[in-house]
Amino acid sequence: MTRWTVYLSGEIHSDWRQRIVEGAARRDLPVVFTGPVTDHAASDDCGVAILGAEASPFWKDHKGAQVNAIRTRSLIQQADVVVVRFGERYKQWNAAFDAGFAAALGKPLIVNHTPDLGHALKEVDAAALAVCEAPEQVVAVLRYVTMGELAD
Amino acid sequence: MTRWTVYLSGEIHSDWRQRIVEGAARRDLPVVFTGPVTDHAASDDCGVAILGAEASPFWKDHKGAQVNAIRTRSLIQQADVVVVRFGERYKQWNAAFDAGFAAALGKPLIVNHTPDLGHALKEVDAAALAVCEAPEQVVAVLRYVTMGELAD
Amino acid sequence: MTRWTVYLSGEIHSDWRQRIVEGAARRDLPVVFTGPVTDHAASDDCGVAILGAEASPFWKDHKGAQVNAIRTRSLIQQADVVVVRFGERYKQWNAAFDAGFAAALGKPLIVNHTPDLGHALKEVDAAALAVCEAPEQVVAVLRYVTMGELAD
Amino acid sequence: MTRWTVYLSGEIHSDWRQRIVEGAARRDLPVVFTGPVTDHAASDDCGVAILGAEASPFWKDHKGAQVNAIRTRSLIQQADVVVVRFGERYKQWNAAFDAGFAAALGKPLIVNHTPDLGHALKEVDAAALAVCEAPEQVVAVLRYVTMGELAD
Amino acid sequence: MTRWTVYLSGEIHSDWRQRIVEGAARRDLPVVFTGPVTDHAASDDCGVAILGAEASPFWKDHKGAQVNAIRTRSLIQQADVVVVRFGERYKQWNAAFDAGFAAALGKPLIVNHTPDLGHALKEVDAAALAVCEAPEQVVAVLRYVTMGELAD
Amino acid sequence: MTRWTVYLSGEIHSDWRQRIVEGAARRDLPVVFTGPVTDHAASDDCGVAILGAEASPFWKDHKGAQVNAIRTRSLIQQADVVVVRFGERYKQWNAAFDAGFAAALGKPLIVNHTPDLGHALKEVDAAALAVCEAPEQVVAVLRYVTMGELAD
Amino acid sequence: MTRWTVYLSGEIHSDWRQRIVEGAARRDLPVVFTGPVTDHAASDDCGVAILGAEASPFWKDHKGAQVNAIRTRSLIQQADVVVVRFGERYKQWNAAFDAGFAAALGKPLIVNHTPDLGHALKEVDAAALAVCEAPEQVVAVLRYVTMGELAD
Amino acid sequence: MTRWTVYLSGEIHSDWRQRIVEGAARRDLPVVFTGPVTDHAASDDCGVAILGAEASPFWKDHKGAQVNAIRTRSLIQQADVVVVRFGERYKQWNAAFDAGFAAALGKPLIVNHTPDLGHALKEVDAAALAVCEAPEQVVAVLRYVTMGELAD
Repeated sequence: MTRWTVYLSGEIHSDWRQRIVEGAARRDLPVVFTGPVTDHAASDDCGVAILGAEASPFWKDHKGAQVNAIRTRSLIQQADVVVVRFGERYKQWNAAFDAGFAAALGKPLIVNHTPDLGHALKEVDAAALAVCEAPEQVVAVLRYVTMGELAD
Repeated sequence: MTRWTVYLSGEIHSDWRQRIVEGAARRDLPVVFTGPVTDHAASDDCGVAILGAEASPFWKDHKGAQVNAIRTRSLIQQADVVVVRFGERYKQWNAAFDAGFAAALGKPLIVNHTPDLGHALKEVDAAALAVCEAPEQVVAVLRYVTMGELAD
Repeated sequence: MTRWTVYLSGEIHSDWRQRIVEGAARRDLPVVFTGPVTDHAASDDCGVAILGAEASPFWKDHKGAQVNAIRTRSLIQQADVVVVRFGERYKQWNAAFDAGFAAALGKPLIVNHTPDLGHALKEVDAAALAVCEAPEQVVAVLRYVTMGELAD
Repeated sequence: MTRWTVYLSGEIHSDWRQRIVEGAARRDLPVVFTGPVTDHAASDDCGVAILGAEASPFWKDHKGAQVNAIRTRSLIQQADVVVVRFGERYKQWNAAFDAGFAAALGKPLIVNHTPDLGHALKEVDAAALAVCEAPEQVVAVLRYVTMGELAD
Repeated sequence: MTRWTVYLSGEIHSDWRQRIVEGAARRDLPVVFTGPVTDHAASDDCGVAILGAEASPFWKDHKGAQVNAIRTRSLIQQADVVVVRFGERYKQWNAAFDAGFAAALGKPLIVNHTPDLGHALKEVDAAALAVCEAPEQVVAVLRYVTMGELAD
Repeated sequence: MTRWTVYLSGEIHSDWRQRIVEGAARRDLPVVFTGPVTDHAASDDCGVAILGAEASPFWKDHKGAQVNAIRTRSLIQQADVVVVRFGERYKQWNAAFDAGFAAALGKPLIVNHTPDLGHALKEVDAAALAVCEAPEQVVAVLRYVTMGELAD
Repeated sequence: MTRWTVYLSGEIHSDWRQRIVEGAARRDLPVVFTGPVTDHAASDDCGVAILGAEASPFWKDHKGAQVNAIRTRSLIQQADVVVVRFGERYKQWNAAFDAGFAAALGKPLIVNHTPDLGHALKEVDAAALAVCEAPEQVVAVLRYVTMGELAD
Repeated sequence: MTRWTVYLSGEIHSDWRQRIVEGAARRDLPVVFTGPVTDHAASDDCGVAILGAEASPFWKDHKGAQVNAIRTRSLIQQADVVVVRFGERYKQWNAAFDAGFAAALGKPLIVNHTPDLGHALKEVDAAALAVCEAPEQVVAVLRYVTMGELAD
């Protein structure tokens, strides 16, 4: 495999994706990153903006979430590795949903969260092949996995 | 199909499973219910109780969550329908994980939560074939699906 | 296989299902028949009746069709053989959808329609292993397939 | 995924495919479009023209539909997204068949039809992740899904 | 597994099926045998007898072979083990087709033929887990596989 | 799909492969052809030549057929379309095995043989989407399927 | 699931299977156990005893191992849970092969060995959901998984 | 297939991989080789080096083996052919695990070991399509399989 595709799922309110993408670029890792649309407003509004307004918030959310699913499920199915990040804020049930979806497809799963979330995330962690605290550890795992390099 | 198997995933701190099981029994529905171990303490301790103590909480959780996964993943894979319930308390990432796992396997998904959780659960709801507010609606869906009965 | 499960998809405004079920019973065929809910009103209303009213006809239909899909997709997936009947009236896109769904799952497909619909149904017929004009022919195919009996 | 493959199924008597292809080209979307042979006469005659004449219209249709299936089923299986368009004219059971086929394969489905067909198409719509009235909305969905762009 | 299902494919002009069924009965093996319709005339005529006469021998054969396929492909898919017998007479391409079909499904394959056919059948034999010369050896393999009994 | 992969299985004693490859080249079809090793002696000897001599013809054949299977099963699994040719000579059980293998994988199947073999090949033909008498018809089918071109 | 099927793979020179089967019986666990033929001589000789003598030890082993594979691969594929036991003696590559086979099929894996084998078995353990030192722990895991019972 | 991907699993203490890679390069074979990280120390330490130290050797091994599994399972799943080499030293249960994993995925398997290991490896050999004693034979098999070349 000359190029690995890694899907980055989860938290959209911190710079973790950027830290991983830049870390991988610095090491010239043979990795292409994919992920959901991370513009929060666009992600919330895409359904009604394209397919027509809805009076009910439920159907607005439904339309938007299904349009986003066209992207996310396609990209998860085509990923070689799925990374799921949980932050402190928000419930992030979609991140856990993605983890379950990836696990059922047999995708190698890397989970990234701070230790204090460990007990609440134990079922997700138990399905992962690596549990990282920092995005830089995700880069180190990807470097080892794709290049076999451990030490500098 | 003379008998349907329905897996009940999620919240273990309210009586929703009992209300569904009893509602189905009252209607004589041809449904067998399965689910995780709902004894919270046993579910947390099973790993170390059986396989040996751990100094670190992470590995205690890991052992327990993996032993529970032997049960939960087997039962979800054998279910005809998966119901996932989200309550007000706790993060319940395991419930969302189960929903994603079931969705990737192509299992028909019924989600049960109160309307105020709707926005946070929009990705999970978007993967469901029915979104119920009350457990009694889950029973009504199962009655219609298995017996074709709608009105009394 | 001591018992075959046969799903009867399509037209709900004639007695074709009854003719097949009775014909199979007369021959004591080892066949269990399944199918969608055939009460038209219940089938149209099930979504809103159980899950709550909708102002828009689109969402009323959406809710109902998804609840029905819990039943129909489960039963098609568990069928050994799928029979799809097309009548003169209505567009019956759901019948053609079921045929495509069954074909992709590798289910043996029997199609039943009058000859005048042949050209319009040529893609569906081309995916079938038997194209019957009358329900009694469906019974004869099932008798031969399950019992090896051809002549009386 | 640097390039998405989108299969355009259904109506061949209007310019909807052209409007989608041109709309995507205008936005430089990373999308390759595939679809059935849209020359109606060639599509009807291909079986007998290549494999030999048939006296019966049924077998003429059968031969042609099976030759077309070599193309259509291969391309649907390799598509990332399947778009199905229903027009006012004709029964278009083959479009609904393609939708069912795509759904069973887990392909994200976008349906395109005018609102007046909504009730008749409710089972197909219920399997879709987006229901569009105009081809331009299909382009907008593809633009958002592949590029994350919503507003101009 | 308390009961094994074994499909017996191939030659219909000798008593090999009977010898296997009787041999298994004598040993009380927990095996249920399935197979194609072995009445040669019925098997050839079933298509036209049920679905209507054909002027061309090709379409008569086509109709009949497709009706038979409803039975044979279903039963092969549900078998635990597939036994394929090749005799001296006839081309028996259908037997080799069944062997390939079973192999692609990952079914354990037992082949039965006399040694003189070995070179011509080398690709089929190479896909088998046991190559037997006599039907009694098939019974002995099934006895060992299901009961663990080797010697008397 | 910008390039189709077509596997050519069967007869190795006539020029049918060359006629198809040249015919496709003449039309500039976007097709890559694959197939078994067609050097008969090499195909028979490869097992013992590489892996060591065998006293028994059965094990010589077994070794060779398994080495050939590394190639043939890989290439069939990666093909978009499988063409199987039956000639007048030899039993060609391997060709029928390939057809069954391809059918179980859901590969579109094109069969090529002269009409006199029709009855003996009816089960194989019944699994095909096109039955051609001449290699030139195979080229015409591939031209139509890949380019949509029917007439000159 | 009213009855779980558990395959017991590995070591045949100690009483671990008996200890698990008896422990499960004592608790009335809803478990059916399956496994390979554990009569070492029969297992080694079955190929040549049934299918004919071989001069070369390689082919004697090959024949026997393939006959055993009819049983073992079928039973592993039908198991809900796979337990693999490694003892002190012998290389037991077949046990590790079974573990890999089960892992690729997504079967929940329980591994049983003494701690001193831990480093050599780390890849196998890493694929397991429970690593037990004693057979009695396997019984305790099965009791918890099937009955939800932890303490006495 | 213009390029074959071949995964080289097993022994990391001899030069067998180098002999295969160089042999293939000498013949200009269209083969890309993949494999595990073969730096023994890195492979043992990767888990704790990246994800944090562990007091217990079991969890150190567990972390490392799971990180390695991200690489190995991905690469095996994407390989066209899997070669597994067993050496004289060490238990190499991971090599046998890889062989079982590859076999369950239907990957063509080539096994490489000296004859004295034959009896202990008979179950692994029985799942292989070629059993080689020397790495040079692996090259010869790959040359024949990819190029059809047997003699020089």
